[in-house]
This record gives sequence, structure tokens and C-alpha cells, in this order.
Amino acid sequence: MTELITDTIGKIRPLDRMAMEKAQDRQNRLTKPPGSLGRLEELSIQLAGIQGKSPPQIKKKAVMVMAGDHGVVAEKIGNWPQEVTAQMVANFLRGGAGINVVARHVGARVIVVDMGVATEIGRDANLVSRKVGSGTQNMACGPAMTAEQAAKAVETGIELMAEEAGRGLDIAGTGDMGIGNTTASSTICAIMTGRPVAEVTGLGTGLTDEQLKHKIAVIERAISVNRPEPGNPMEVLAKIGGFEIGGLVGVMLGAAARRVPVVIDGFISGAAALIASALSPGVKDYLIAAHLSVEPGHRVLLEHLGLEPLLSLNMRLGEGTGAALGIFLAEVAAGVLADMATFGEAGVSEGDG
Amino acid sequence: MTELITDTIGKIRPLDRMAMEKAQDRQNRLTKPPGSLGRLEELSIQLAGIQGKSPPQIKKKAVMVMAGDHGVVAEKIGNWPQEVTAQMVANFLRGGAGINVVARHVGARVIVVDMGVATEIGRDANLVSRKVGSGTQNMACGPAMTAEQAAKAVETGIELMAEEAGRGLDIAGTGDMGIGNTTASSTICAIMTGRPVAEVTGLGTGLTDEQLKHKIAVIERAISVNRPEPGNPMEVLAKIGGFEIGGLVGVMLGAAARRVPVVIDGFISGAAALIASALSPGVKDYLIAAHLSVEPGHRVLLEHLGLEPLLSLNMRLGEGTGAALGIFLAEVAAGVLADMATFGEAGVSEGDG
Repeated sequence: MTELITDTIGKIRPLDRMAMEKAQDRQNRLTKPPGSLGRLEELSIQLAGIQGKSPPQIKKKAVMVMAGDHGVVAEKIGNWPQEVTAQMVANFLRGGAGINVVARHVGARVIVVDMGVATEIGRDANLVSRKVGSGTQNMACGPAMTAEQAAKAVETGIELMAEEAGRGLDIAGTGDMGIGNTTASSTICAIMTGRPVAEVTGLGTGLTDEQLKHKIAVIERAISVNRPEPGNPMEVLAKIGGFEIGGLVGVMLGAAARRVPVVIDGFISGAAALIASALSPGVKDYLIAAHLSVEPGHRVLLEHLGLEPLLSLNMRLGEGTGAALGIFLAEVAAGVLADMATFGEAGVSEGDG
Repeated sequence: MTELITDTIGKIRPLDRMAMEKAQDRQNRLTKPPGSLGRLEELSIQLAGIQGKSPPQIKKKAVMVMAGDHGVVAEKIGNWPQEVTAQMVANFLRGGAGINVVARHVGARVIVVDMGVATEIGRDANLVSRKVGSGTQNMACGPAMTAEQAAKAVETGIELMAEEAGRGLDIAGTGDMGIGNTTASSTICAIMTGRPVAEVTGLGTGLTDEQLKHKIAVIERAISVNRPEPGNPMEVLAKIGGFEIGGLVGVMLGAAARRVPVVIDGFISGAAALIASALSPGVKDYLIAAHLSVEPGHRVLLEHLGLEPLLSLNMRLGEGTGAALGIFLAEVAAGVLADMATFGEAGVSEGDG
């Protein structure tokens, strides 16, 4: 691992117990039966522990959408042509994609990063161009990335998070775009959780049962060709890919090191979280699982990480759409803690239950 | 039933299939794999069918919070004194309660209605004072309300919804406040679904197991004393109460008659939905279940109604807090349908999956 990655991991600290106790104490004094706001109360306490202050503040919000291409598309594991990655990046930049609409409702900025799209994307003032390579290699034939590329991808995520945190960021969401990236994510999930490939591989953006069998066979081939070592998460990342997954690993490490809560989106973000938390188990405390994706591997990896999703809306779009909704819930949770009246302030009698 | 109630029920029409087909067709052309936004897509189509236009518009939002007291508190079925109902209404009016904070984040107005609080609430420009009575009678000893009071409560809800719809309202949420109203709601739930009282009775705002047994016994006594007929929902409402539940029945009927979607909150709103949909099964199509409450009867009644909740956050506060979050999701769903680019507009290739 490079110095930047090691240093970043070294800066990840436990949650601030004092701030959490303060938040819990205030929750108990707010004008409602204790615990009656359920997950929103728990979330407010986690946010206090992450930010190290109670009440936590959620005002500056951003979703980091990272895009990259995957060489494994050569194996025809999906129905969408590779050029869709670049086309969707253009769609993000014009504001026409799902994440743009959801983020507008949430009041979150969308930061679009080219981590390794296969084709050249024209210049755009809103594009963060940090291409590590022009798409990964085909993992079914050998390593998807070199060790250097994997490190570079993670470092890029760390650097971008440092820039955003420097400008002031109260919460980050993760998002992804990359044709073929459910295949890479299923592979990472199988390796890191030790579960059978068939159990963590799903229909992606829409496959037949026949195509699903082929996708599983390709993943099994990739694992037997590369023989990645689960105990070496950077090696797993390098051998399987992709650039956007590595970038998201860096975002999570960088955010945790800077005490910024990270709302992770669906399956691809979850695969990145597996790598990030294997590099540094302390990262998990800084993660908020937004939703449960339709992809079967997502439930497996969330259980492995010990994260419980906030939403279950049968979504499977990616892009950070689930994360944006989760950011909204985090903002409400923080707002409740900060702005509700206490029993004393409101002159409301307390129950003795 | 009174003429206003009968007329309102007569105005409830099926959803607009043309608008729903138009919405479905547009969903399929938006730049995402078809169906990948899951419940948000379904919700946008339901909203189109309710409003009779595609895309539906969700801009003017309000949560109708109805308050009333319950005579059954004389049986000591909870730990909170009755005066808390009035104190919390004052808290709503000052903006310090959970619903105020959540509604501010959602951009929804909070309409606070005194449907039958036991004590006099001082004048307040923001209070809608429509007291049907000063708390209901104790249902464990006889009918909670007269038939006239029950009709008056439902009519009040219809009238208030007519006023709001007249001013322009794109979506309504329901909320409640009333010490003792989980007891009334469990009773209504047991009667209308035919399930055992013990199965639909929970800890309310916080009971011990011993207190729960007592609550169940009180409910069983109320049923044996009143012998309400499940086939006569207005009789059930009158015998069990309460004023705020009757008001919410009226809000649901009135909204459905005016093609306004209604996001129903938790268990108390669910009990009102049981009565409303028994009066007119067509109401169900106009309802959106916001969340799954911790109260065990809530799951039972949602299944009975055929409604699937959007959120499951272990909430049990009431007040419309869940409904407000559901309104936000409805707004996002409508926004996605209206504002996302189509494949054609964005120049994105379509998958052949």
C-alpha cells in the first residue's frame, strides 16, 4: 500500500462516545416517547459520533458518482453496450439522469468523476476527470488492473474526498456508473464474504436465466484465473476491478479519516465497502447503508458488514440514487435532534412508562 | 349515513387507467433499466392514476394532524396523562414537535385540528378548532361516541379536505394525536380484520407485559360491551371512537372523492383507513402507506388493506411523521417521472434485455 493510503487508514478513529451520549440524552428529553422515532434516532446518534458533535449538522451534502468501464464486458455478461457508460456520464453532466433528479430533491450536489471510462469524454466544466485507465482489462483472462492502478484509484478517491472536505462537506453519498460493474461486484462479494458465486450474482440490469448462468461461469473463471487472496483486499481490488470501485474505496477511507459520514448506495458501493472495511475495520462505523438493492449479493454483503439498510424500495439503478434518499433521512434525523422541543421547553408532561 | 358522507362516497371513482399507461410508457423510456427505480416507479404510476395526469404534480403538500381524547384512559391503559394531548397540540402550534421538524424538511404544511381534545385549548390562529366533543366516552363501559358524533367527525374531515383541495393541494398526509388512541385503534383493527385482540395490540407509547395484558382485557371488554357489527363501519367508529379517527376517515373519503393522494401514517391512520375502505373499497387506490409501525396491529391492517408500506424505520410516534417522509418519496417519484431524460433526448443506447 502507498503512503497516502496507509496514512489515511491511520487517521481513522473510533466514533466519539461523548457526542453519542450527549445525543442519546437529548433524544430522551425530546417531546416524544423515548425511541419512538426508531431508526431516525439511532441515525442521529451515529451522526453525532461521526462528526464528534451533538447535534450533528447536515447541510452541505454531495453524492460522488464515479464512473469506469470493465473489460469483462468482452464476455457478454450483460445486454447494454459499453458506450452507455460514457453516454450516461454525459447524461449526468446535463442533469437528466435519475441521480440528478433525486439529488435536486435532496439538495445534494452531484460530483461526477471519470475514474476510467473506456472512451474519451469531451471536456466539461462539471466533469472531474481523473482517469486511471481507459477501462479495465478482462478479469476472466487475467488481472483487471495492475497493483499500481488499484492504488492510484484508491488514492484518487482519498484526494477527492480531501478536496471536498476542505471546502466543507457534512455528508457524502457514493454512486457508480459502469457497464459490467455488477459482475465485478458479485466477484468481489464472493471473494470477500466466502459465499458461493451463484448466491451473490443477480440479474444486473436485466438478464435471462440462461444469461445469469453464463455470468456466474464467467465470475468463477475470473476467480480461478486470478486466485485473489481475500486477506489482501488491495490484491482483490486490482485483480477484479474496477477503477470506479477503487475510487469509492478511497472515498470511504478518506471520509472516515475526516469524520464525514458516508451514505453508501447499492451493490457496487457495497462491494467497495467490503474492500474499504477489510483495509480498515473502523470504516464501518462511518458508513450508513441507504437501501437494500434487488441484487441478491447486496443483502449478503450488508450482513457481512453488519449494516442495516434504511430503505427497501426494490431499487437497482445505482448512480447514488439510493444514497441520495439516505442523505435526506440523515438530514431529517439530525434535524429532529437539533430542532424538536424538549419536555421542559414545551411544558409537556412526561409518561412514566 | 348523512347525505354529505353518501355523496362523497358516490364521487369516488377508479384510478385513471389512461394516465397510468402514459406514466408507465414514459417510465420505460427514461434513461435507466426499466423497473430499476422499483417502488418509486410504481408510486409515480399510482399518483398519475389518482391525479388523472401524467406526470403527476406534487408541489402543494400538507399533513393533517387531528387530535382527540379517549374516555378509555379511565381504564389506565397507558402511562401518559390525558393532558398530554392538549400539551402536544400546543407543541404542534409552536412548531416544536416531531411532525413540525419532519414536515419542514419535506416542505409540507402542518394543519392542526382539534377534533375533540378533552380540555379547552387556548385560541391560536393556526389551530383549526372543530371540536365534536370534549373527549369520547369510555368504550369499556358503553359507546365512545353517539352515531351523530361519529357522522359529525367524518363530515368534518370531508369538509376540511374540501377546503384544502379548494385552495390547491397535490398530496395530503394524515397524522394523529390522542392519548389512548392505540387502544381504540387496536379495537377497531380486531373488529374489522377479525383477528384476535392479542395479535393486534401492542405496547403503544411504552407498556410493561403486565400492562399489555390489562390493555388487551380492556379491549375485549369494550368489544363484549358494545358488540359492534363489522359490516357497519360507522357503528364500529361510533362505539369505539375516537373523534380524530373519525376525522381521518373523512379526510380519506374526501381526498379520494377529489382525486388527492393520501399518504397514511401509522397505526391510528391505519385504523381510520380500515373504516374508510369498508365504507368505500375504492378509497384504497388513493392511499399510500408511508411506513410500517412497530405496533403489531399495523402490519395486520396493512395486509388486510392490501397496502405495502414504503418505509420500515421502527417508528411509532404518530403525528404524521411517517406520512411526511412518505410525501417526500411521492414527490421524488413524481419528479423522476417528470424530469428524467428519455433515451431519445439523452442519446443513450438502449439495452436489449
